[in-house]
Amino acid sequence: MCRTLVSFLLLLVFVTSNAQTHPSLFLNKSEAKLFLQEANQNKVNSVFKNSFNDTKKEVDEWIGKDVDVPFPVDPAGGYTHDKHKSNYMLMFNAGVLYNITGESKYALLVKNMLLKYAVLNPTLKKHPQATSTFAGHLFWQSLNDANWMVYTGLAYDLVYNYLSVSERKQIEVGAFKPEVDYLTIDMKEWYDRLHNHSVWACAGVGIIGLATNNKNYIDMALYGSDKNGKAGFIAQLDNLFSPDGYYTEGPYYVRYAILPYMLFANALEKSNPQMKIFEHRNNILQKALNTCLQQTNINGSFFPLNDALKEKDFTSNELVTAIDIARNYYGNDTGLLTFAKKQNRVSLDKGGLLISNSLKLSKVNNYFPYKSLESKDGVLGNEGGISILRNGKGENLSSLIYKYASQGLGHGHFDRLGINVFDKGNEILQDYGSARFIGIEQKYGGRYLNENTQYAAQTIAHNTIVMDETSHFGGDTELGQKYHANKLFSDFTNNNIQVVSAIEENAYKGTQLKRTLLFLDSIDGRKYIIDFFTTNTSSTHQFDLPFHYKGQVLSTNFKYTTPKTLNILGKHDGYQFLWKEGEAIQNGGIAQFSFLNNDKFYTISTLTTDTTNIYLTRIGANDPSFNLRSETSIVFRKTKQSPSFFSVIEMHGFYDTRNEFSYNSYSNVKDLKILKQDTDITVLQVVLNNSTLLIALANKNIDNNTSHEVVVLNEKLNWEGPYLFKKIKNQN
Amino acid sequence: MCRTLVSFLLLLVFVTSNAQTHPSLFLNKSEAKLFLQEANQNKVNSVFKNSFNDTKKEVDEWIGKDVDVPFPVDPAGGYTHDKHKSNYMLMFNAGVLYNITGESKYALLVKNMLLKYAVLNPTLKKHPQATSTFAGHLFWQSLNDANWMVYTGLAYDLVYNYLSVSERKQIEVGAFKPEVDYLTIDMKEWYDRLHNHSVWACAGVGIIGLATNNKNYIDMALYGSDKNGKAGFIAQLDNLFSPDGYYTEGPYYVRYAILPYMLFANALEKSNPQMKIFEHRNNILQKALNTCLQQTNINGSFFPLNDALKEKDFTSNELVTAIDIARNYYGNDTGLLTFAKKQNRVSLDKGGLLISNSLKLSKVNNYFPYKSLESKDGVLGNEGGISILRNGKGENLSSLIYKYASQGLGHGHFDRLGINVFDKGNEILQDYGSARFIGIEQKYGGRYLNENTQYAAQTIAHNTIVMDETSHFGGDTELGQKYHANKLFSDFTNNNIQVVSAIEENAYKGTQLKRTLLFLDSIDGRKYIIDFFTTNTSSTHQFDLPFHYKGQVLSTNFKYTTPKTLNILGKHDGYQFLWKEGEAIQNGGIAQFSFLNNDKFYTISTLTTDTTNIYLTRIGANDPSFNLRSETSIVFRKTKQSPSFFSVIEMHGFYDTRNEFSYNSYSNVKDLKILKQDTDITVLQVVLNNSTLLIALANKNIDNNTSHEVVVLNEKLNWEGPYLFKKIKNQN
Repeated sequence: MCRTLVSFLLLLVFVTSNAQTHPSLFLNKSEAKLFLQEANQNKVNSVFKNSFNDTKKEVDEWIGKDVDVPFPVDPAGGYTHDKHKSNYMLMFNAGVLYNITGESKYALLVKNMLLKYAVLNPTLKKHPQATSTFAGHLFWQSLNDANWMVYTGLAYDLVYNYLSVSERKQIEVGAFKPEVDYLTIDMKEWYDRLHNHSVWACAGVGIIGLATNNKNYIDMALYGSDKNGKAGFIAQLDNLFSPDGYYTEGPYYVRYAILPYMLFANALEKSNPQMKIFEHRNNILQKALNTCLQQTNINGSFFPLNDALKEKDFTSNELVTAIDIARNYYGNDTGLLTFAKKQNRVSLDKGGLLISNSLKLSKVNNYFPYKSLESKDGVLGNEGGISILRNGKGENLSSLIYKYASQGLGHGHFDRLGINVFDKGNEILQDYGSARFIGIEQKYGGRYLNENTQYAAQTIAHNTIVMDETSHFGGDTELGQKYHANKLFSDFTNNNIQVVSAIEENAYKGTQLKRTLLFLDSIDGRKYIIDFFTTNTSSTHQFDLPFHYKGQVLSTNFKYTTPKTLNILGKHDGYQFLWKEGEAIQNGGIAQFSFLNNDKFYTISTLTTDTTNIYLTRIGANDPSFNLRSETSIVFRKTKQSPSFFSVIEMHGFYDTRNEFSYNSYSNVKDLKILKQDTDITVLQVVLNNSTLLIALANKNIDNNTSHEVVVLNEKLNWEGPYLFKKIKNQN
Repeated sequence: MCRTLVSFLLLLVFVTSNAQTHPSLFLNKSEAKLFLQEANQNKVNSVFKNSFNDTKKEVDEWIGKDVDVPFPVDPAGGYTHDKHKSNYMLMFNAGVLYNITGESKYALLVKNMLLKYAVLNPTLKKHPQATSTFAGHLFWQSLNDANWMVYTGLAYDLVYNYLSVSERKQIEVGAFKPEVDYLTIDMKEWYDRLHNHSVWACAGVGIIGLATNNKNYIDMALYGSDKNGKAGFIAQLDNLFSPDGYYTEGPYYVRYAILPYMLFANALEKSNPQMKIFEHRNNILQKALNTCLQQTNINGSFFPLNDALKEKDFTSNELVTAIDIARNYYGNDTGLLTFAKKQNRVSLDKGGLLISNSLKLSKVNNYFPYKSLESKDGVLGNEGGISILRNGKGENLSSLIYKYASQGLGHGHFDRLGINVFDKGNEILQDYGSARFIGIEQKYGGRYLNENTQYAAQTIAHNTIVMDETSHFGGDTELGQKYHANKLFSDFTNNNIQVVSAIEENAYKGTQLKRTLLFLDSIDGRKYIIDFFTTNTSSTHQFDLPFHYKGQVLSTNFKYTTPKTLNILGKHDGYQFLWKEGEAIQNGGIAQFSFLNNDKFYTISTLTTDTTNIYLTRIGANDPSFNLRSETSIVFRKTKQSPSFFSVIEMHGFYDTRNEFSYNSYSNVKDLKILKQDTDITVLQVVLNNSTLLIALANKNIDNNTSHEVVVLNEKLNWEGPYLFKKIKNQN
């Protein structure tokens, strides 16, 4: 509510602005001159020039041609969908080229297309392929119509000066008004959501408003269809990011959402600099971008939290433009340059030219300045969050991602206290991501597949605990949205011993889940993740902790059986997709499971003093269209009251295929023990080949100043704060 | 027999040679001076200098240390195995550095190690981990002992001048004689085989002979333990390659075998240039290397024919040295330079320096000059062969490999008339390769796994026909070794229409298998493989044709069922490893199966006018140690007398994940028909979207001058030679 007030103050600022000059939303005339100079210069090493030439080549293919503006019939991946999608990019790019080159053929191309849309759009109704209530007109979903509005609005601004007054009117009334009306009136409820789709919608309406100097549109864009600030772009800036810039839907979606934020903010800044939109909420757009970029792996992929397609990486179009705009408003940044170099193209705007010039002059780092960091979730930063624990440099970077955030809206997964592990650019413990083949018509028209909700979003698809074969919150998104996990403590002061602990009390009514992780580096030359996951229940339940490893099974220290026919692990909540490829029961000692991922060895060691059933699973059952990837996990199951799962994930050795050597291919973990576990204190022991690790945890008073003392193994341990880590060299 | 005679003439040449100067086998003193200059020069862009520095860094770690020479106990991947393996490379590298730098610390390191081996070797008996009759002493298999001899012999030559006379005697008697005696006397039968392992053995004995000036050893190396020329290095040169340089065990093994050939030939050339060993059999070593390099994919991997580990590529150590030696004796070659650039290191010899200098001066192509080519198999070139059909440039290279060769000795697979397809650097239709984790102790000591013979070598693991669920030759290598397939005809004159046809008459007694392939490019913008596989039997049999596709299932035009529990496809001959994930029966029309591999679409269309059972399979059953990769195939089954399999493999479109577009994701194949099939003539019809292809094949007279005439579809087809290809634009 407080933020809504701020929005209204901004409203006052905005109404004082003048009528627009054109073009002013993506670039202006003086910038276009600079761009032409750069495009004409002879040096070969200009990313800007190359990007200009690429764009020119694409657009020139259409010059003189009658571009089809078909009546919409197909879903994503089909002809009419793809045609309208390529059309808006073509209009935008041609508009940019018109301003840079001054050649009217580009403006003519845009004009002809806009006039066709002016004829088509008034005839449109709900798209025939619409499957949700968020139907579009030109496309099967309203989101794509919003995309069209953003780029077509920019294109209109870019060729405004080329159009006659009557052509302008024809386009504004025929092409734009039906779309704006549809989104803001017919789709009012959708338009006024605080959601990434609606960011596109507001940006679309706002850019059209700026381009057509329509104050009504601009006000609806900034403050919602009722212009009261409860919805609209400002509310979206204020409510969709945490104060750190964490985006509740996760990194895959902020990659997508950042673009309309940046494009509309850029248009606002260029047309109404007095708004200082880029400074809004302490530079929230800069924070959002940096947080997004930190949530990537060195191979460029985004951490696949919530709904996420793994093939998307930091070279995606959205991030090229976002980085270029950020460079222009927030100044030079070596991290941005690292990504820009890998993108190897820029948008044809001022930031793009600045980036291109920097790439000419600077030695650019191969790797983004990745670091351990925590992001709080929730608009006030009080809804849990995620921790990213990192060690290793360059290609040897390892990342442990720990998610104790809120649900993450409709694209959220039931993954409370879940972890992901990356090492050397590879996924080691994976999150499935989402089940979708975007843009491929044969796969359900490119939409999210049914297996997305049935498997990918379910708890069993994540590296966290499932109780009684039922997903967190019973798989109910609305219920999940009401609660969030909470961090208990964390400590990143020593890079070799990073610690974080979090708790979840609502995923299963009456059950407390608590997971404490230590990410250790340089322990006798190896990296270890100590994973202590406790449960607290009033009665016996079945608890499953899966590790979705990637790699080839190398060896186990336990005997397992493999079946003659494959059966499913369970009947619902995602279990019905898992084949049981192997089974074991252990009772005491550690179960060790080693696998090979690319050229490195990994071992999961788990304590089995509670009777532990072990399952080796593979995705593929009940998937008649082969929509899921065939991937594996090891599941540890304990059925009792309040079991604990104590595991060590070890990263070790090196497989040198060239020289046919393997180094350190065996685990160093000899034993795991829980030396003490009561309401006050837990003491864990990890016995390695050459040393023994003691981890003591305070269970009640976790503030940094409380002193704790405990005697274990005839030794007195004293410490202040929530945890103690101690390494002892083994005798003999 | 004729070649044996040639060998004896060479023997006469050899005995006239003088006693050796040292070093003379890998490098000589004047070359070493040039190498030092290069190593000391300041230019950073010297691959030779970098390789020198890398070697120096590795060796320097051991200077002043007491290097362990342990009593052998472990299999491959274990400590003593790996130690002896790293020891021989260390001695060799230190010997090279001694000559280049002149620093005696390197010679001292080698001397101390050689003296330890002089103590150890006389005590050795059959290795405790030996599993075959080819046991070693230092290692579990004699092959590794031969490796040790090659490098240790070279190391001895390199430090010869540093050693006292008594030290020399101690080493020759203690370190070398037990090994030479063991291989040539105890292992005589193995030593005298014509086989890649024995090439290493002869090279080892020969290099030690040259280094110690022992004529007995040299003669045994060149002409076998009986010195009669029936075995030994010359016989190996004469009998293990076809006249084209094709190596019957396949590309993975020639990669490995080429090294002892090159190292021993190099030593012979340097010490006895009058032998002109590199010119032997019309430069057979050059042909062997070039044929080997042509049998690679653009990503560097060797075609996985027969036993082959896919992770080995042209950057393997063996090929670095082989390419450098070839450069020295056969002159500059742009193809070799392309590989050398990717290897980014050279051996510290004259060829290595020449390559390094060329890399400084020349613009090196990104891609090897790949071309379509055929290699005949068999020492006389009359035992079938392989055809590699290629089109596309650079990263768009597509390769169709067709194997109609002989068995390929003990590493051969039962894969007569099998095909493999690569496209854009990716495997599209795969050969499993071999089941082995070389150098990983946990996986059966790094040896070939049982699943290698049980699955990987079986016919069902290949893209060719299996009759009655039984592998070719009943899976009997000895029987298979007696026969080979035969090429009927081929034509590569038009790069857009490449054709090859071959026949196999012995894989199944009384059954004739014939497969004709056309690789078409630029047919309405797409590539197609037309695959016509006929069988000729006297009664009803079950025929399976699997396609081991790699990728995600996209869609099928036929209905299939997926089971609630997974069962195996069959009980033996590899079938027991395959789960049945889907099943269908088709009777008439075409069955189409589309999949997505990386960013491209592929469709297999098959005619089902004979009732066709279709199985979708996945590897994984009966594999209790998870030794096999979980991979997929589609199997077409026809049970009748003499069925034909008529399929089209189509490569199409592009999946642009960045822009979320898919282009040309649907097949263009509308219908397949066999218009005529009798003893004289077959006419096939492929109906595409916009055109129709007619392929007429002569079944009896396939010589190029015979005229044929046939009337189909009211049209008269006339042609000369074995086939006619005709493209007709569709009406309307």
